[in-house]
Amino acid sequence: MTLPVFGLPAVEEAATTPLVLDTVRDALIAHAEGRTSVPPPLHMAFPEADGDCHVKAGRVAGAPDFTVKIATGFYRNPARGLPANHGLVCVISARTGRIRALLDDHGLLTALRTAAAGALVTHALARPGAATLAVFGTGEQARLQALWLAGLRPLDTVLVHGRDARRAAALCDELRARGLPARPAPADQAATADIVITTTPATAPVLDAARVREGAQVTGIGTDMPHKNELPPDLFRRAALIATDDHDQCLDHGDFGHAVRAGTAAPDADTAAGLLLASPVDRPEGAITVADLTGVGALDAALASAVLGRLMP
Amino acid sequence: MTLPVFGLPAVEEAATTPLVLDTVRDALIAHAEGRTSVPPPLHMAFPEADGDCHVKAGRVAGAPDFTVKIATGFYRNPARGLPANHGLVCVISARTGRIRALLDDHGLLTALRTAAAGALVTHALARPGAATLAVFGTGEQARLQALWLAGLRPLDTVLVHGRDARRAAALCDELRARGLPARPAPADQAATADIVITTTPATAPVLDAARVREGAQVTGIGTDMPHKNELPPDLFRRAALIATDDHDQCLDHGDFGHAVRAGTAAPDADTAAGLLLASPVDRPEGAITVADLTGVGALDAALASAVLGRLMP
Repeated sequence: MTLPVFGLPAVEEAATTPLVLDTVRDALIAHAEGRTSVPPPLHMAFPEADGDCHVKAGRVAGAPDFTVKIATGFYRNPARGLPANHGLVCVISARTGRIRALLDDHGLLTALRTAAAGALVTHALARPGAATLAVFGTGEQARLQALWLAGLRPLDTVLVHGRDARRAAALCDELRARGLPARPAPADQAATADIVITTTPATAPVLDAARVREGAQVTGIGTDMPHKNELPPDLFRRAALIATDDHDQCLDHGDFGHAVRAGTAAPDADTAAGLLLASPVDRPEGAITVADLTGVGALDAALASAVLGRLMP
Repeated sequence: MTLPVFGLPAVEEAATTPLVLDTVRDALIAHAEGRTSVPPPLHMAFPEADGDCHVKAGRVAGAPDFTVKIATGFYRNPARGLPANHGLVCVISARTGRIRALLDDHGLLTALRTAAAGALVTHALARPGAATLAVFGTGEQARLQALWLAGLRPLDTVLVHGRDARRAAALCDELRARGLPARPAPADQAATADIVITTTPATAPVLDAARVREGAQVTGIGTDMPHKNELPPDLFRRAALIATDDHDQCLDHGDFGHAVRAGTAAPDADTAAGLLLASPVDRPEGAITVADLTGVGALDAALASAVLGRLMP
């Protein structure tokens, strides 16, 4: 029996927006309720090639499958005309250990689950009438966060802040082509939007906490390693509600952890993001709310399993 | 570009005995000389299905590839007519992070590298004239250790000790069909052979240290978890030379570690097995020598890379 390998076009077709949203919502709730397992990842470094490899596994309790996801980043590749990132998702039966299939998805499912988690949590926390969005960053997640949030609520303005003006303009062009009223903006203006989403690899805060307006929702999705930091610790002091996708991860290597270490948030000040998706959020009028999303391995498992269910019904 | 997947027949044909021996010898030497990297493995447990999943990675410094090996064991499968173990080796470029190919080898390369490492180290440590072999255990490694050692030196007797007499007899039939003079033996007789190799999943010593003869070589390859134990701690007290394939692993979850904790060996009493392959062993007359092999992830990397070199020249 040959091992089935599904490439990017097949995965792209199977991973419809409703499927991704439903699966990610359910998995975030399962994770918040302690119904997932995510072992410590495996890591290798290749300093001579400026590369690294992470292997992450995850499972939702009771699910028929679990996944092992291999992801590499070799940062000199682009100079040679090669993509920096490669990867593979291996879907394995949690009942027999048999490898059911491989998804050679070039990282698509990781990008989609990150986009869906960001949009779902941001939408759940933002004021019902919030309609101006600012995204910090000009990469794939900047684009996806804007598009996916626009699928959940109407946006009348999208401000894009990037260090590279040409890339910011290009992203605005792309978002306008998709029907979103996007324009570049300086950081101080972007920080005043109703909804702010940061998607950068920054190692120091990208916005000024004092600029954030009362009633705003700020979501950070770029901080996934201890040396990274997007959201200013002072913002957490102003927040009436702090949502984390995984308490331990966010404490260890998210923006929430930076705030706790800076003394602007208590280590138990956060609420599991999944719980905010399970029932309506009681949002104080004029409150600032913050979400710190570091990426949850169990979401990979849930999404890959759901996609494989479409590919091999 | 489709990801190449090579199945068992292709891997079996490419993994010739000389290729496996040369590659494993070189990799054991590289490991002894500190020229490998092996990160801590990733582990998941599935208690409700009596299953587990281990992901191991490894690399030989300077090699063009590294590997990520996924292995599952679901121990209720055999009752349902399914194999207990499944797995996959992913060969990845150490220069670009690109996944070069997958080897869907059903664990063959792991079995072959274990057999080759056992035979090479046992052969290097045993007296030149040692010609009686006893194997404890009746599984795949019992068979392979006998066959691979017989490929390196003449054996005039092969004693097989197994708890299950029927399985021991069946293994002897199989070895005789391959030209080896094999017969079942009780544990106390098997322990007196010139060369003893233990290949069991035992959790308590399988032989009496007092029965082991002067001049004997004893190799343990079955102890790969802290709760397992094949070789009696007292045997290490009698040993003039103790070889380990990986000092830290053997101390943590090998028979050597049991001996150190029992006070019959000093924690620094061992010699890296690879060093004994790099130059001739100076073996005191009448000495007992012991090898504790727990399995080195870098060997997987080296062997998979070598096999892929044959499959995709």
